[in-house]
Amino acid sequence: MAKHEALDAVFVALADPTRRAVIRRLGEGPASVSELARPFAIALPSFLKHVRMLESSGLVRTAKSGRVRMCILDRERLAVVDGWLDEQRRVWEGRTDRLSAFVTDPQEQS
Amino acid sequence: MAKHEALDAVFVALADPTRRAVIRRLGEGPASVSELARPFAIALPSFLKHVRMLESSGLVRTAKSGRVRMCILDRERLAVVDGWLDEQRRVWEGRTDRLSAFVTDPQEQS
Repeated sequence: MAKHEALDAVFVALADPTRRAVIRRLGEGPASVSELARPFAIALPSFLKHVRMLESSGLVRTAKSGRVRMCILDRERLAVVDGWLDEQRRVWEGRTDRLSAFVTDPQEQS
Repeated sequence: MAKHEALDAVFVALADPTRRAVIRRLGEGPASVSELARPFAIALPSFLKHVRMLESSGLVRTAKSGRVRMCILDRERLAVVDGWLDEQRRVWEGRTDRLSAFVTDPQEQS
């Protein structure tokens, strides 16, 4: 997955309160799909769509253990969001640096 | 806008490479809609849809100045993403703390 596709998929996955709640729950440790579904008043097939979307974004990995599907959070994948935010901050800081250079020595700017 | 609605709107807005590029460009300073549109090989009406989505998420504010619509980035709104990520980290750290408490003194856990 290219970097921008990874970001697209991660941001789409995070744009839903149910999926964010699943990520939060998985931050406490692995859980089965049925444990994850329990707090939500939605039908299992709809819940499974959320799990599949989280899986295809790479935020969640799942594995069958007997008849139970276990889910774990992939924090590395969530780190792409931190990476993108850091990139924006570098842009802002570059701007601030240019502004202070201008204030300190306006002659240097042509 | 409730907190989870703000997050939904911000994450949807960020789930597109054109919109992320606009945010990055606005990190360098305010720009008009036509300046923002220039690097993209898409029709202006399509580009305006992106701008409107950024505006409705609160990430971008726009104002008409004569015949020109100027756009500025609202970094405060982007900070909701940092807030959400911090919340997840606190969940992970809470988990790590519980694990170390267990390792240090398993008798304390019932």
